[in-house]
Order: sequence, then structure tokens, then C-alpha cells
Amino acid sequence: MREFDLLKHVYAANSTLHPRVTIPPGDDMGMVSIDGRDVLVAVDQLIDGVHVRIESTPIELVGRKAIARSLSDIAAMAGRPVASLASVVLPKDLDEPVALRLFESMRWTASEFGCPLMGGDVAVHRAPQHPLTCSVTVLAEPVPPGPVRRDGARPGDRVYVTGRLGGSYSADGSGRHLAFQPRLAEALQLLHDLETRLHAMIDLSDGLGRDASHLAEMSNVTITLDADQIPCAPGCSWRQALGDGEDYELCFTATGPVPSRLGNVEITEVGEVIEAADGDDTAIRVREGQRVIAVGHLGWQHQT
Amino acid sequence: MREFDLLKHVYAANSTLHPRVTIPPGDDMGMVSIDGRDVLVAVDQLIDGVHVRIESTPIELVGRKAIARSLSDIAAMAGRPVASLASVVLPKDLDEPVALRLFESMRWTASEFGCPLMGGDVAVHRAPQHPLTCSVTVLAEPVPPGPVRRDGARPGDRVYVTGRLGGSYSADGSGRHLAFQPRLAEALQLLHDLETRLHAMIDLSDGLGRDASHLAEMSNVTITLDADQIPCAPGCSWRQALGDGEDYELCFTATGPVPSRLGNVEITEVGEVIEAADGDDTAIRVREGQRVIAVGHLGWQHQT
Repeated sequence: MREFDLLKHVYAANSTLHPRVTIPPGDDMGMVSIDGRDVLVAVDQLIDGVHVRIESTPIELVGRKAIARSLSDIAAMAGRPVASLASVVLPKDLDEPVALRLFESMRWTASEFGCPLMGGDVAVHRAPQHPLTCSVTVLAEPVPPGPVRRDGARPGDRVYVTGRLGGSYSADGSGRHLAFQPRLAEALQLLHDLETRLHAMIDLSDGLGRDASHLAEMSNVTITLDADQIPCAPGCSWRQALGDGEDYELCFTATGPVPSRLGNVEITEVGEVIEAADGDDTAIRVREGQRVIAVGHLGWQHQT
Repeated sequence: MREFDLLKHVYAANSTLHPRVTIPPGDDMGMVSIDGRDVLVAVDQLIDGVHVRIESTPIELVGRKAIARSLSDIAAMAGRPVASLASVVLPKDLDEPVALRLFESMRWTASEFGCPLMGGDVAVHRAPQHPLTCSVTVLAEPVPPGPVRRDGARPGDRVYVTGRLGGSYSADGSGRHLAFQPRLAEALQLLHDLETRLHAMIDLSDGLGRDASHLAEMSNVTITLDADQIPCAPGCSWRQALGDGEDYELCFTATGPVPSRLGNVEITEVGEVIEAADGDDTAIRVREGQRVIAVGHLGWQHQT
């Protein structure tokens, strides 16, 4: 079962969504108008065995990742964090001091990024082998002229990514997927510098191939990526950089000049947005020398 | 491990909460000020094996309960629903049509109560025996002079409950816990009728004994309940009505006249609020004829 496909199914019936919902399902965050004020909201999950292995990972890094994944969704909209909530199901045999360290790490990480943990829920599984799950809800404010959505890419835009991609996930308790910096500050800086030239953005959780494909589909365009431009993490091929996932970098499209770095974060042009050909539903193409490969299937989904 | 105790531990360190958080952890919902506007937010979970048994329960009722539990938190604050999000971890072997019926039921229930499902996340466990978990976040608006909090009970208040209590939970796929009506309309009507005389409110998920005890602790008062006034569901003793939990009725304290019903929902006076005696941390007492029993331990927690 493909999670994204399932979500599309779920929300296909949702076309009669309430008018106060101003960004419907399908973006990194939804937006709702509350008493005339727009509020961004999203929820993301961290599940032992799917996104992390708690037996080989310091519990503090588990808590950090649970929060940071949701913060990355705020970055993708160029939003400003407001507050977070965590609902957690603990394994039955987890020691209470370990549980407290988990919460302490979540609280600290949320606070570090200006998104204070303001509540939540704790429950305990009925059987020891049932896995830890952390579900983190984040609230954020849109920052004008944002929020930056997935559906704004236009033919002629250039495509950019922050950082270096590939090889982030490791089941052995190490890897960038446990220590990444959500690109909150960089996203706000981009919005400030580019203003309305920043057309579309998404964070890279499923892999550049799959995530750029989501962006292209939502925008009704095709994205062409240059294999030799993709900034690969040390030791990674462009196929890994495209397919591995869990980078939590940003991919965005824009016109006009774009800085080549923000602070110590590289920004790399990796491709361009072109018109989708009539009757062709290819979202992504990768140019490698003279070859052009239609992709999408390289994108990575959590094991299902 | 007691969930409530664990949460208290977690949030004890949270005294330096950000000033934009206007209702801190400990109430049915938190409240945060976003650009000058107060927003209520809460998250609650439904876990197979803890709050429901999916092998013996129609999946539509599982989805309904997942949403309705969180709506009951909105009722407890006398808030007005805005929108909801659901993050779900599906068992590995759950058929996709069943998953779709689960989401459809969540969507329908949320919509029925004016709290449209505007987003969420779906993941799939790595092993078939790992249980379904549904985490539901709800956003709501406070309604002046609300929100009604847990900490406003004052000596001299009378204590009331809606509906009839006890015997709600059954593991066999039946029971009121699957079909209860979140008391959203009743809470708003009470706030409208009583205004500032409605001092404190909580919803009854853990049992009147434990929940009234939370309310008393937050308000620094003692609550005395009259055993023979407690409205018991058919076939239940007052001890069951006090201890069973999963009623999702409201318990509130107020001064002055209170209606004896709202629509077809009974309202019953069950006790009074008195000053907490110096050096006595008993939150709740139950009067049964001439006897007075200090309770709290009758309250029900999910198996841990």
C-alpha cells in the first residue's frame, strides 16, 4: 500500500471541504482561517521500525527527529513556527526514565526552533513488542507573500535544492536523518530575498525524485533534472541522491537570481520547469548526458 | 506507568513555557495566541488494544470514536470546532478497502460535528501484529466568556454531570464508548445560559472519580460527591459510574440555577465544591449515607 496513493484516495472525496480550509490536503501543511486569521497546521509521525530503530538509536535522537520532521514541513511552506503538540504511544516495557528523556528531547528541540511543545497525549501499548509511535502536530503562521505552496511552479522556473542529498538514512543509530537542521531560517530568508519570485517549495523526505514529482504534479508541469548537477552527499551516486529520501532539505522553484548559499547552506540549481506535454503525465525527467530518463519510481517510500 | 503522572512529570519542567501559550498543558485543550487571536488545540489517540479492539469492532465505529474523543475535548472547553487532522499508523496486513472505510468514517464524523478533516498523515507498521493507532488533532475557537477551564472551580459551586455514567466500555464491539455524542452543543448552550457562572468543566474519559479529581486538583479545592445522586447507566452501581470511564459526558461546576436538561440530555447535580482543608490533599470525597469515602483510586485508567 502506497501511503501517498492512499492519502490521495482519502482526500479525493474531500472536494467539498469546508470553505474555512484555505489550503486543502496535498501540501506540506494545511491552512485554515480562524476568525479571519490564517493558521498553518500539519502532523507527521515517527514510528519505530519505519523511520527509526529505537534499539540502536539514542532516545534523545529519536525525540529530536520526531519534532524536526514536522518542523521541516513548516520550512517547506516558509512559515514561522508557533507551537507544537506530541502524541506518543510508548512500548509497554519502556522504562520511565527513557520515556522522560524522549519527552525532554522533544521539548528541547521544539523550543530550540521556536515551536514550544504546548501539550499532547501519552498512552502505553498493551504488548511489549508494539512499537513506539510519536505523532507531532505543528502550528505556524504564514509569512507574506507566503505561504509557499507546492502548486506554484511555472514553466521557465529554475529548480533548486539546499544542502547535499543521499545516504541520510541508516538503521544503525547514525546518519543525517537523526541530526538534520530543519531549514526554517533558510526558507524565511529565501522568501524575504526572492519574495514573489519564489514560486513553489517542498521538503525532501521521500527523495528528490518522488518529492519533485509531487511538486510537478501539483503544479501541472514537468520538471527536468540534470543528473550531474544534483549535489550528492559524500559517497553517493546521483541515483542515491535522487532516491534515498530522509534528507529534509528544501526543493524550490524560482525565477531570477538565487543566492548560491545562505549562511553555510549551499543552494544548487538542479533543473528547470517545463510545460507538461499534452497527454503525457510524466512529472519528472532526468538528463544524464544525452540520455533523458523518465523517473518517479526512484523516489523512496518507507517500507510498507 | 500512569499516563497522567508521566504527563505531569513531562510538563513540570515546562514552567518556562513561551508567553504565546495562553493555556498550558494540563487542561482538555491548550490555547495559543496566533497574531493576537486565541486558538484552542488538542490531540488525542485511539489505539487498538487500549481504547478499542478492531478485530471485534466495525471499522467505521473505530474511526468515529477516534474523532469523537477529540471532539469531546473541545466540548470540555465549551469551544467551537474549527478543523481536525488525523495521523494514522495502519497494521501491515490491513486491507486497503478497510483503511479507506476507516478514513471515510473519520472524515464523515468530523464533518458532521463541524470540524472538517483538513489533513493528516498515513503510515504503515512494519509487522502485521503492530496495532492500529489514530492520533487526532483538533483546532477550536474559544467562545466568550470561555474557554471554560479545569481550574476555575470555587468553594460553594455545585457539581453537575450530563447523561448517565458507567458501563460504557466493552471490548466486544458494542457499548456507548463507540457511539457517544460529543457534548459540543450542550457545552455551548451551558456557556450561553450560565455565562460567567459556569466556572470549570472537564469531559469524562477516565471516570468521574478520576476526572473530578483532576478538576479539583487544578482548582485547589475538594469535591464532595453524593453517591446516591450519581446518574448511573442501566445496570451500573455508583462505583461503576464513578470508576468505569469512557463516558465522554461533561462534568462542570457552577453557581446559581442550572437547567435539569438540555434537549434530551439530562443534567444532574452530583455534589459540591468545598475548600481544601489545610494539609489535606484529598481531591474527592464520596458521601454514601453517613459514610464519607476518600476516593481517586476508583478512577479508571487505560490498561498499562
